[in-house]
Amino acid sequence: MEEIEVTSSSHSYKIIIGEKIRFRLKLFLPKEYSSIFIISDEMVAPLYIDEIRSNFTREKIFQTILPPGEQTKSIETFYSVHTAAINAGLDRNSLIIALGGGVVGDLAGFVAATYMRGIDYIQIPTTILAHDSSVGGKVAINHELGKNLIGSFYPPRAVIYDVETLQSLSAREIRSGYAELVKEALIADQNFFNTLINTDIQQVTAKELQSHLSLGIKIKADIVQEDERESGVRMYLNLGHTLGHALEAEMGYGKLTHGEAVAIGLLFTLHVSENMFSKQIAYKPLIEWLKENNYPLKLQRLDDNALLNKMKSDKKTVNSKIKMVLLDDIGSPLVKELSDQEILDSLHSFNRKLVTE
Amino acid sequence: MEEIEVTSSSHSYKIIIGEKIRFRLKLFLPKEYSSIFIISDEMVAPLYIDEIRSNFTREKIFQTILPPGEQTKSIETFYSVHTAAINAGLDRNSLIIALGGGVVGDLAGFVAATYMRGIDYIQIPTTILAHDSSVGGKVAINHELGKNLIGSFYPPRAVIYDVETLQSLSAREIRSGYAELVKEALIADQNFFNTLINTDIQQVTAKELQSHLSLGIKIKADIVQEDERESGVRMYLNLGHTLGHALEAEMGYGKLTHGEAVAIGLLFTLHVSENMFSKQIAYKPLIEWLKENNYPLKLQRLDDNALLNKMKSDKKTVNSKIKMVLLDDIGSPLVKELSDQEILDSLHSFNRKLVTE
Repeated sequence: MEEIEVTSSSHSYKIIIGEKIRFRLKLFLPKEYSSIFIISDEMVAPLYIDEIRSNFTREKIFQTILPPGEQTKSIETFYSVHTAAINAGLDRNSLIIALGGGVVGDLAGFVAATYMRGIDYIQIPTTILAHDSSVGGKVAINHELGKNLIGSFYPPRAVIYDVETLQSLSAREIRSGYAELVKEALIADQNFFNTLINTDIQQVTAKELQSHLSLGIKIKADIVQEDERESGVRMYLNLGHTLGHALEAEMGYGKLTHGEAVAIGLLFTLHVSENMFSKQIAYKPLIEWLKENNYPLKLQRLDDNALLNKMKSDKKTVNSKIKMVLLDDIGSPLVKELSDQEILDSLHSFNRKLVTE
Repeated sequence: MEEIEVTSSSHSYKIIIGEKIRFRLKLFLPKEYSSIFIISDEMVAPLYIDEIRSNFTREKIFQTILPPGEQTKSIETFYSVHTAAINAGLDRNSLIIALGGGVVGDLAGFVAATYMRGIDYIQIPTTILAHDSSVGGKVAINHELGKNLIGSFYPPRAVIYDVETLQSLSAREIRSGYAELVKEALIADQNFFNTLINTDIQQVTAKELQSHLSLGIKIKADIVQEDERESGVRMYLNLGHTLGHALEAEMGYGKLTHGEAVAIGLLFTLHVSENMFSKQIAYKPLIEWLKENNYPLKLQRLDDNALLNKMKSDKKTVNSKIKMVLLDDIGSPLVKELSDQEILDSLHSFNRKLVTE
């Protein structure tokens, strides 16, 4: 079992990574709660919700189970979960538990952030990808005009990561999660990056996975501690996401997983960085590894201008200028404002390179 | 002009109270903004929005004007204001201005709290009542099952209170606002209370009003600085609101103004307190003053059990026990948990007293 402590502006919380810790939740809660409200989805609840409930014998306990998928992060679902919470009689001494992947975590966290102006919640992530979203306190729902546009910074009281719950993930979900681990390695840790690109992610052991998650989470935790509200270094975590988010939006959500889109975004970042700084950084080893692990790289040709516009609608955009996170080297990120023409030229050369690869 | 500084967990901000300061807004903003988004309502906008806009000649400036009244604090309006903000291209360097009373302030503040996970906003209150809601960072919308159930603690960057904008208030709005000033006086300041109950609020001068607002806001600011998230002394600000909120809900919003309901709630608090501590505190001078100033005190007889249930659905309720703020003396509040029977008995004797008054 590993513990990582994160200090936020409002409180400190622990991220605990280990096996079977879903049966020992109370060890990791900061206090007693009068009632418990579990938010999960139809895929995860049948597997784990009874085990989670078994931790609470004295408390009043309620649950709400949502359809899986991005469309659950809607204003309608947000409101209906509030309704369920009010009807359950949750008060300021109640605890919300987010049991699931990033969608459940983001929605449940935003409900907790806004229920009676904020009550406690914990994250129990059940995907590798959610190691990223469950740490750092970013919670949100989608607006029809863009992802995560309505939300808060609202850190959880604990993140309890039982790696046993990751054993049932599909190959695609494993790929999706590992892309964010590669991102963290690229931002901060050459050795971790070397480890990852020597990993066959479909053959990873529970022990390796726990180690990879710990390393990735530590990198993320260090950054969000330094810059909780994304005014500075936290933007580095956006590495690969400028194009990644645009690809997801432009192709229609669900065609590519978030991590698959980020993987292409990371390659694009390396492409732009290597050109800008006239040196090799990691494009070649990364694309080799992505291919070996069956990441989708041959996409239908998308309209570059449409992608550019999507890139501009990102929350990090200020004054309509695209700020992209680049790498001067592995472990050495920087933020650069790029003109529309630079982006278009880079997209063009990147596409040509991918096609001939 | 008076300035009161408030320190919140995230930043400090100033409350400025004076005449004509609506024409000098930029003096009070913490930084330059790329664009400005004014949220107001159909009553206030025709009077002041052009004057507010005239402060910003270089910035992009947008506005959205909402119907007046409590029903504007709905999830639908919240979402549609987000839509307008996205369409205006607001980014993290934009400023939202809440121009209006408490409804506009609460809604606009909650939009600011949740737009791209939080952008800056300022309050320009145009009612006396809003001196209370504009300070302290409580923002919210209503759920159909209760007022202010969806919200955040999210302090503004400044509160700019131009007392000239209060000259057009109706007698009813003045009454409503003064009830919260009386509440603050009762919580903390015997002299202020004596001043208020010697004031004919329909004849108050701009200078007196500015002084009363400053005194009330200082009391509120001191309390919210000590306890931003309402885990302790901030609950004192709920004085008179346990019954006040229940009356509003039970009679149907709009029948009584918020302040009129709070005025009755304050009387009820004094009734309970005087009985509990077997001494006179301020029931008699308060009811005299309320009558002189035409506060509605003769209400249709309401069902005590229905009121009790409404009192229990308050956000301050934990484990279904009603916690009421009482006074041991003027300036000496305390929180007391009362049983259902104690509440019912007090409501009964209070009603009998009011009727024979």
